[in-house]
Amino acid sequence: MREVAVIGAGMTRFGKYLDKSMKALVREAVDKALTGAGVARQRIEAAVVGNAMAGLITGQECVRGQVVLREMGFGGIPIINTENACASSATAFHVGWLYVASGMYDVVLAVGMEKLYHQDKKRSFAAIGSAIDVELMQQIVAKANADAASKKASSENEKPSGAGESRSLFMDFYAQFARDHMKKYGTTREQFARIAVKNHRNGSLNPYAQYQEVYTLEDILNSPLVADPLTRLMCSPIGDGAAAVILCAGSIANQFTQKPVWVRTSLLASGRDEGHTTELVAKQAYDKAGIGPEDLDVIELHDASAPAELLLYEELGLCKPGEGGKLIDEGVTELTGRHPVNPSGGLIARGHPVGATGVAQICEIFWQLRGEAGKRQVANAKVGLTENAGGMVRGEFGALAIHIFSV
Amino acid sequence: MREVAVIGAGMTRFGKYLDKSMKALVREAVDKALTGAGVARQRIEAAVVGNAMAGLITGQECVRGQVVLREMGFGGIPIINTENACASSATAFHVGWLYVASGMYDVVLAVGMEKLYHQDKKRSFAAIGSAIDVELMQQIVAKANADAASKKASSENEKPSGAGESRSLFMDFYAQFARDHMKKYGTTREQFARIAVKNHRNGSLNPYAQYQEVYTLEDILNSPLVADPLTRLMCSPIGDGAAAVILCAGSIANQFTQKPVWVRTSLLASGRDEGHTTELVAKQAYDKAGIGPEDLDVIELHDASAPAELLLYEELGLCKPGEGGKLIDEGVTELTGRHPVNPSGGLIARGHPVGATGVAQICEIFWQLRGEAGKRQVANAKVGLTENAGGMVRGEFGALAIHIFSV
Repeated sequence: MREVAVIGAGMTRFGKYLDKSMKALVREAVDKALTGAGVARQRIEAAVVGNAMAGLITGQECVRGQVVLREMGFGGIPIINTENACASSATAFHVGWLYVASGMYDVVLAVGMEKLYHQDKKRSFAAIGSAIDVELMQQIVAKANADAASKKASSENEKPSGAGESRSLFMDFYAQFARDHMKKYGTTREQFARIAVKNHRNGSLNPYAQYQEVYTLEDILNSPLVADPLTRLMCSPIGDGAAAVILCAGSIANQFTQKPVWVRTSLLASGRDEGHTTELVAKQAYDKAGIGPEDLDVIELHDASAPAELLLYEELGLCKPGEGGKLIDEGVTELTGRHPVNPSGGLIARGHPVGATGVAQICEIFWQLRGEAGKRQVANAKVGLTENAGGMVRGEFGALAIHIFSV
Repeated sequence: MREVAVIGAGMTRFGKYLDKSMKALVREAVDKALTGAGVARQRIEAAVVGNAMAGLITGQECVRGQVVLREMGFGGIPIINTENACASSATAFHVGWLYVASGMYDVVLAVGMEKLYHQDKKRSFAAIGSAIDVELMQQIVAKANADAASKKASSENEKPSGAGESRSLFMDFYAQFARDHMKKYGTTREQFARIAVKNHRNGSLNPYAQYQEVYTLEDILNSPLVADPLTRLMCSPIGDGAAAVILCAGSIANQFTQKPVWVRTSLLASGRDEGHTTELVAKQAYDKAGIGPEDLDVIELHDASAPAELLLYEELGLCKPGEGGKLIDEGVTELTGRHPVNPSGGLIARGHPVGATGVAQICEIFWQLRGEAGKRQVANAKVGLTENAGGMVRGEFGALAIHIFSV
């Protein structure tokens, strides 16, 4: 397979854009990527577009990528729409990488896009709830309702709604993991909070971040409880946004830039009933790239909640099992530490417009490895990793994408 | 890029399965493909799943492929969900082909699946209506409503609904094309009807077809008018179903079968403002395969309506522009003709569960080229083509996939 480089990146600031269309968001991100890379639109030979939830939110269930890209003048080229819940656009990047690595096309665009905000909040919640097995959840809710009815203890107000139920399921999952970790290893809620402090501080340095506020440990701990021990400021918010990168055959990268960012590994996986998916895929990714976790200078990972980031420290091999709390205490994952994690602010502060997150992570690593990350720049970053996970099926992530990059 | 073979195929009969889940349909199709090919589930290294509309119909907006495949024991492997409206699963096949052709994986599963029927028919229509630019359509409908209101000529009943409007748009498009063709070339409604007669007759020979009735020319012409000159029996119905194929690296195909079906070309494109997309992509496909349309022994194409099939005769180069009517009159595209088209019955008779159609077309070509197509077998078929188109953006198809196969 051929060497592949990333030669351009662009994104919108993530946030709440009730009055901006998906087309406007994507146009901004793609224009920035093209302009930054000095790539004419006509050079793009194929495009892969990741989005998770437009069907339920705007009703644009089909040809989502064509609807946003054809207006910008992209015609004739292959346009593939990929979906893998929160990993939708890391999957788009993976398919774009395949196009180039296979030798089929030389210059390919990968886009991530999402609008989660809607005047009708129920739509947003129903969409987010669909990242699990909806049929199974409906069965569980129906059974719960039937049980409640048979006990004659239910009132209309107490009946669980499918969407709300499945939404809380995600946070319940993280909260349960957090409590287990605390019990097993003595991890503290302050350590989870410290991760949120770090990511919010990083976000305050990132003009693309949805939240740019600095919070103290007390602020984080005292924000409203979502599911013990998770507080609101430890969780990723909903948001809107778009991100785009341009992939290019290594052999012609120097036509466009003196600073290509090389794709060392692109791996996608689904969860396994046996668990430990992330550890396994991370090991495969390190082997393929010929590196180990000790070589990572900068990491963007899927901190849907602060405990998720702590768990990922361990799963990615940045520390041993149970030592995630120690890692944050020692400052290893701070901007100035040995393994800075989520310099962008991560999902918690940069925001998490589901289908846009995967490519946004890659944008951040692109800028970090080129030394273009402004106030949040990690010093001397040469090797970076992105980890993006999506959906939940049978108690494991539906999709997991790990990419390793280097300069 | 590596040689790629198709080594197995399986599908459900297309039809109305209100009581069968998507999981059950996919299990049937995938089990048939695996068993037929003698491939153990554990040999599958990656899966790509095409679906267009589950989000709006069942609410399963995300991780659609994982939800159906994880239950069957597929875990750990990459699972990519692709969407390209009616070309969703031809796109899934294309990505599966990329995985194998690139050298990344040796044995890959491609699945197409759709359930369009729902107790609430409005859901089905809204989903089908989303294969165009929904935002644009809403603007058009809003403007039409405002115009009507300003003329004080509108009544509640006459107001167009978004979904109904966009659904009729597709058939209006085909009807307008048909009328233009009749005017320009003297094509007759009987010629369109003859295509429907052929496809229904082929469908009657296909145990997988949703409709297995034989109709006379009069039956077709006298069935209810959809949009002049289209009658209902000239149009594809809605339906449910699943289809699966197994792709394999050419170098190891003989481990599984003595009758591999080779993928000679896999091309995907989006529409162009300049039009003529299908002619252009077909030419590229012929060039890549080193053949011409005269070499095609069997063809499965996207007859969303009978006029679409006639147009495609011309666009694929089976005849000159304007001679599509003559081609059907002369029997060239009949089962016994030189270029049999839609031996399966096509979208009109085999049925059109949107996201399942692309892979179902490939199943049919697989069986035809292996001489396993039963009563609808085309004699001595060595080279086959599938054409699958999806969605409509800016007056052109959103996605177009052309595949050429040979034995």
